[in-house]
Amino acid sequence: MSEFGFINGIKNLFAELPSNGFDGIGDDCAVLPDGNGGALVFTTDLLAEDVHFLRAATSAEMLGRKALAVNLSDVAAMGAEPVASMLSISLPADATGEWADGFMRGYREMSGEWNIPLVGGDTTASKSGITINVVAVGRVREENVKRRSAARAGDAVMVGGVLGASAEGLRDILRGEYDTPNALIHKNPMPQVREGIWLGGRREVHAMMDISDGIASDLVHILEASRVGAVINTELVPAVSDIRTAVCGGEDYKLLFTVDGAAAERLAADFLETFGYAPYVIGRIVGASDYTVEWRADGRRIATDWQGFTHY
Amino acid sequence: MSEFGFINGIKNLFAELPSNGFDGIGDDCAVLPDGNGGALVFTTDLLAEDVHFLRAATSAEMLGRKALAVNLSDVAAMGAEPVASMLSISLPADATGEWADGFMRGYREMSGEWNIPLVGGDTTASKSGITINVVAVGRVREENVKRRSAARAGDAVMVGGVLGASAEGLRDILRGEYDTPNALIHKNPMPQVREGIWLGGRREVHAMMDISDGIASDLVHILEASRVGAVINTELVPAVSDIRTAVCGGEDYKLLFTVDGAAAERLAADFLETFGYAPYVIGRIVGASDYTVEWRADGRRIATDWQGFTHY
Repeated sequence: MSEFGFINGIKNLFAELPSNGFDGIGDDCAVLPDGNGGALVFTTDLLAEDVHFLRAATSAEMLGRKALAVNLSDVAAMGAEPVASMLSISLPADATGEWADGFMRGYREMSGEWNIPLVGGDTTASKSGITINVVAVGRVREENVKRRSAARAGDAVMVGGVLGASAEGLRDILRGEYDTPNALIHKNPMPQVREGIWLGGRREVHAMMDISDGIASDLVHILEASRVGAVINTELVPAVSDIRTAVCGGEDYKLLFTVDGAAAERLAADFLETFGYAPYVIGRIVGASDYTVEWRADGRRIATDWQGFTHY
Repeated sequence: MSEFGFINGIKNLFAELPSNGFDGIGDDCAVLPDGNGGALVFTTDLLAEDVHFLRAATSAEMLGRKALAVNLSDVAAMGAEPVASMLSISLPADATGEWADGFMRGYREMSGEWNIPLVGGDTTASKSGITINVVAVGRVREENVKRRSAARAGDAVMVGGVLGASAEGLRDILRGEYDTPNALIHKNPMPQVREGIWLGGRREVHAMMDISDGIASDLVHILEASRVGAVINTELVPAVSDIRTAVCGGEDYKLLFTVDGAAAERLAADFLETFGYAPYVIGRIVGASDYTVEWRADGRRIATDWQGFTHY
């Protein structure tokens, strides 16, 4: 069974339960409005040894950083500011002691970079591999919450940075080359937290999410939630290597967002002035009945089999 | 390294980060007051195969129920009402399909019993065992929050039900007897959610927590947090079998709470009227300088080596 099949099954199974004020199911975070114009957002990610990381290929410190970073990226993708985390970790006997200490140092380092406390968690033994589960909590003004469902025909589609480096890094790692520049990007992603908060405050930004499976898959989530289509110009995609790796590779943790077409140029200029680098316009949202991406090269539609990255 | 050593190390490591409004570190849940007299509470628990459960000994359905139940017990122990959960699950190839469906049915069943939505989560592959991480969120009036640190000399010490059945059930399971009455209690614990919310609303209830490691260990957490001691009369402890199993066995998931001495009798009567069964008074809180339990039999102090249950 695919992960998506299982997840859709779960969705149906729980459909009749009350929401108790939560929404955002299907977004990067669940959203709980506080009734006073504010909201909390919640996300959780699990990392399993030999599925999401190889113990030999990463330092415990880097893994500690990454375990938190990928959750901060989800919080940022909602336009929210991370305010706390919880950490559950299951450790086999050969990963206690030094390994555990190194992991916590890295986790603490990333927590310190964003000034967020560790407010709960669970540590247990493991009879098999290392498993890590992190929860991040964020805070945001309700009007600043960015959802996948808010893209509109005419929007520019933008990404917050170059794509494909993490996927190239994973290839290096699987070849045994653990310390190439791309491998380091894969092992130590930098979530666009400040950028997400800033974009959250801009009315012309409509839909937003973070790129975890490659835009060939992630953008489709926006299209389906917003009931629109997209035209992407492959020559505009900022690819570290080939275009296929850039759009199908996983774990970029850059922001993917759509911006009112008339305001996109100004937003990009303000972004550049604020952060010292520019986001990339890669295409536009169109009205459509099938919620798919039309890929173009030199203005012409091209046929592709591009799909997103899957850990399965 | 013991779990407690690791946890204390983590506490120090994160001591200098801002709290961002969260408190309750060291309680069953983290607490986030909303500034309007309300608060949210958060807890998380990880279950690892062959550490917390044996796949052969439990049905997937029961494990789904239990994974949520143990978190609801933590929410109830704060005096809070559970309002949502998040579920992360890492599944090896031989536990997808039927096993996963069964697990989700059980999780859905327990969610339905308390009317709480599943608001987020993560499903991934596993190259080793099954790992489950659940987050529960609760809501409570801030004045109703019960903490471990609120016990006072003169309080009665009470427990919400008989103790030791889960530990006896675990013994049965380890002997290969999976379906004894005690084994079923171990595999399908019933969190005292209604009782916790009700006790939260009573001013005469001071400290509260749930019993997950046995009162020989759990009560000491209250004593240390409250800087008091306790005298426990072993003949008053509602033990399913022997007293040692009752106070050192794990996973009872009954509430442990302290009540103003002058109001204890009335509270017990009201509890009985409300729930149809009575809580047990097992001893009292005393002023002390060393925060330990004095165990008594027939009014005389007895020497013991009783400690709490540990999954390690």
